[in-house]
Amino acid sequence: MPSTLANLGEFGLIDWIKKIAPTTRDVINGIGDDTAVLKTSVGKYLLLTTDMLIEGSHFTRRMDPQRIGHKALACNISDIAAMGGIPKFAVVSLGVPSTLNGSFVKNIYQGMNRLAKKFNVSIVGGDTNKSPHIVINVALTGEVSRENFVLRKGARPGDKIYVTGPLGGSFQSGKHLLFIPRVKESQLLVKKSKPSSMIDISDGLAADLNHILKHSGVGAILEEENIPCAPGAQLDQALYEGEDFELLFTLSSKKTTKFDCIGEIVARSGIWLKDKKGKLKKISAKGFRHF
Amino acid sequence: MPSTLANLGEFGLIDWIKKIAPTTRDVINGIGDDTAVLKTSVGKYLLLTTDMLIEGSHFTRRMDPQRIGHKALACNISDIAAMGGIPKFAVVSLGVPSTLNGSFVKNIYQGMNRLAKKFNVSIVGGDTNKSPHIVINVALTGEVSRENFVLRKGARPGDKIYVTGPLGGSFQSGKHLLFIPRVKESQLLVKKSKPSSMIDISDGLAADLNHILKHSGVGAILEEENIPCAPGAQLDQALYEGEDFELLFTLSSKKTTKFDCIGEIVARSGIWLKDKKGKLKKISAKGFRHF
Repeated sequence: MPSTLANLGEFGLIDWIKKIAPTTRDVINGIGDDTAVLKTSVGKYLLLTTDMLIEGSHFTRRMDPQRIGHKALACNISDIAAMGGIPKFAVVSLGVPSTLNGSFVKNIYQGMNRLAKKFNVSIVGGDTNKSPHIVINVALTGEVSRENFVLRKGARPGDKIYVTGPLGGSFQSGKHLLFIPRVKESQLLVKKSKPSSMIDISDGLAADLNHILKHSGVGAILEEENIPCAPGAQLDQALYEGEDFELLFTLSSKKTTKFDCIGEIVARSGIWLKDKKGKLKKISAKGFRHF
Repeated sequence: MPSTLANLGEFGLIDWIKKIAPTTRDVINGIGDDTAVLKTSVGKYLLLTTDMLIEGSHFTRRMDPQRIGHKALACNISDIAAMGGIPKFAVVSLGVPSTLNGSFVKNIYQGMNRLAKKFNVSIVGGDTNKSPHIVINVALTGEVSRENFVLRKGARPGDKIYVTGPLGGSFQSGKHLLFIPRVKESQLLVKKSKPSSMIDISDGLAADLNHILKHSGVGAILEEENIPCAPGAQLDQALYEGEDFELLFTLSSKKTTKFDCIGEIVARSGIWLKDKKGKLKKISAKGFRHF
């Protein structure tokens, strides 16, 4: 592979991407035409989501490009999981400086492709452009049962609140570049327990819980001592840092699950933190701010 | 609307976008959840495409933001048209500097929304991020009949070559920001004439014809005097400039259409230009280079 993208050229890059792109039987026509042509399943709804990663805001060139590529797809798969769906087809747009080393771009795709194969996602198209800094946009479709999809709304007073894993310190630990989206856990949940609401934690526990609460018109009490903090992370980090990409969901109190119960939905609005002594404190819903 | 995006905040922007987003009956759940939930039609294939516009490469802040928004969606709709499909659902990612005037972003969306309504496209989700310069990515789904979709491959020696409109000078005339994607023309074609191959002209007539030729394993003779040049544009501009977004297609010689016939598919590889005297000259397939 030539050293810079200017040497490789746009069509050289597209040929290379096409050659290594993961595909499945549902892809009638993949990369290389005006659009992809794809099979959908009868009786399912289509899911569609997109996420943009920007150099300087979400990653730097000193990070491992395979992990950057992994993350660009993983945060989209996480959104599909948060609906109770299965990821299917992705298109990838890339903006890159002409002077960028070709192997950097190659590694972004290899990180993305490895994760795509793991989740049976086909990469079916994209767009490549010159840009003063690196921008990666992934749009991903998914499929979900017409009966079993889970929204942010639907949480009811008395429902218990759960998370699929420990929270906080994702930027320091590098988890934000390495996390495995919770598709398996989500499938288990929608098939066995049917959550009343669900979201993935990208902005932080408090901020994403707040989305569920606003959509559902309810409030929540979180039990301080039951919030699982990632190794080295403090409670504040678990509450307010983003990019954990665990699922946050609510279940009717009659149902059970193996995941950590961290609190309960209440009628009174706001997020309330209960300390070890049982004392309640209203907390802010602030999370990661993009602007 | 506050003067800068930093004042408005991410959720303020999302609320505003959600309020004005075009929608249709097929949208079960639109902007504001982890993903959109959408109805697809039985017996159709799903189409999926994406395009990224980057400040400095594709537009500048001195251009009308409504036209920038228009273009960001229009080039995706054009790709769906080039397959013989109907556009359906779009997700929009935006990277913007915090210091950008809120009305600039608002106008990008309004230009996009106006076009979306015209084509019955629902805007069902997106992502907003901080970026040192403006980046807009649109991903668009479409639907196409399982029998009538048209690929780049399929052109056969003897087929005639057509374009849906005049070419060249798109950047100077401003057509690249204002064009109406050829969905109506494409629908007419797939229903009445069934093209053997089709593409939209984004890289330039020669470059995009070359895609059809490579995919189909054939060559072409273009008749110099039959190539329709846009007002003020020369033949070289019609051949080599990009962003016309007209459809270029081939039809069996037994079929007819109202569009301009500009040449014929031949077995011998390459693109050959026939001048008024009938003399043939092999021409380059060069087009717009992104790197």
